[in-house]
Amino acid sequence: METLKPIGHIETPFRSKFGIPRQPGIVETPGTVVFEPEYRVAEAVRGLEGFDYIWLLWGFSESAGRGWSPTVRPPRLGGNERMGVFATRSPFRPNPIGLSSVRLREVRQSSPRGPLLIISGADLMDGTPIYDIKPYLPYTDSHPEARSGFATRPAEILLRTECPPELLLRLPAEARESLFEILAHDPRPQYQHDPEREYGMDYGGLNIRFKVCDGVAEITAVTATEK
Amino acid sequence: METLKPIGHIETPFRSKFGIPRQPGIVETPGTVVFEPEYRVAEAVRGLEGFDYIWLLWGFSESAGRGWSPTVRPPRLGGNERMGVFATRSPFRPNPIGLSSVRLREVRQSSPRGPLLIISGADLMDGTPIYDIKPYLPYTDSHPEARSGFATRPAEILLRTECPPELLLRLPAEARESLFEILAHDPRPQYQHDPEREYGMDYGGLNIRFKVCDGVAEITAVTATEK
Repeated sequence: METLKPIGHIETPFRSKFGIPRQPGIVETPGTVVFEPEYRVAEAVRGLEGFDYIWLLWGFSESAGRGWSPTVRPPRLGGNERMGVFATRSPFRPNPIGLSSVRLREVRQSSPRGPLLIISGADLMDGTPIYDIKPYLPYTDSHPEARSGFATRPAEILLRTECPPELLLRLPAEARESLFEILAHDPRPQYQHDPEREYGMDYGGLNIRFKVCDGVAEITAVTATEK
Repeated sequence: METLKPIGHIETPFRSKFGIPRQPGIVETPGTVVFEPEYRVAEAVRGLEGFDYIWLLWGFSESAGRGWSPTVRPPRLGGNERMGVFATRSPFRPNPIGLSSVRLREVRQSSPRGPLLIISGADLMDGTPIYDIKPYLPYTDSHPEARSGFATRPAEILLRTECPPELLLRLPAEARESLFEILAHDPRPQYQHDPEREYGMDYGGLNIRFKVCDGVAEITAVTATEK
């Protein structure tokens, strides 16, 4: 038995599960790792700025305590086929710890909240607890030619994204590119493809409504949400 | 807070810390992941056989409970320079969880101890607790061009290995290649380079003594150890 204590948490634009990319690195969304007061020590991240990527070990807070199942239905397989939980990255595992490699953009030392890690590409909900940060070592962590069973690289761009000009004005400039990329990767569950249905996702304090029809994701509403 | 429960443990030829490769994949030593009775479910590993590599999340059992230090002295830097703990893979971290990608050779289903994962390249001591197994996904886990600060790939072969014929006979054929590779990578601490000193390491039930002089690691004794 081992008890883990969060060393920090991550801040991302994702305030709800819907819309979070299914794997890290798919979309270059911004994120910030904020340390807990006990770990706000400039020394503890010394040398980290020399690494392009870091590993985050994090907690599947939503699935914690909900137990595990020997098989799960990966979204990649359309939600119909069952695979062993250890052959997937499903949250419903015996120990609900997630693993993501993310791009390290900057180690910001001069913040009132201690050192901040400015990252991109995290597939994590805002507020996710972080249990460990490790440097990414390509000579031992990188196996570009490894076979990966049913989990092949997802198609690069699936949908064209459209947004009426009056709604575009409500999207902050820095959020547009990431948001369009998220929609292009089709955040809908793979078994729900109803062209009439309107979906909603939270992104950086905005509620984004959209429909998908004939290969086009069209934004239908943009409203502010409360954090 | 999150409490982790071992889902299994690993069996490797390494019965003591000395001699364990400093990173996974350096030497192709054999290993077997054995599940705890509760997780001996054939279904739980269904589909895993399609993956070349798996991630192991494991416990640094020796360092657990010994606290953390904001900086550590990586062996790579000769043990003299301090780096932030989060810029290293040191065991003395706030949450003593290790991360290793290992080659998956076989998923053996028909064992009396439930499914076994036959792997190679683990840098783990015999009996290390395993907390999670995840499939290796190259499209999100592999970044071959990533900069990795001070932690560059170690030199491929450092030492020539010699073994007198009478000692060679005491080494089981299947252990020779791995053992010679381990010695070639120079398992000595980087700050101990005394040519007169005899070192000892346990490997697969054998105690191996050796000296290093002028670029040659010479085996000086081979005796059986008690497990």
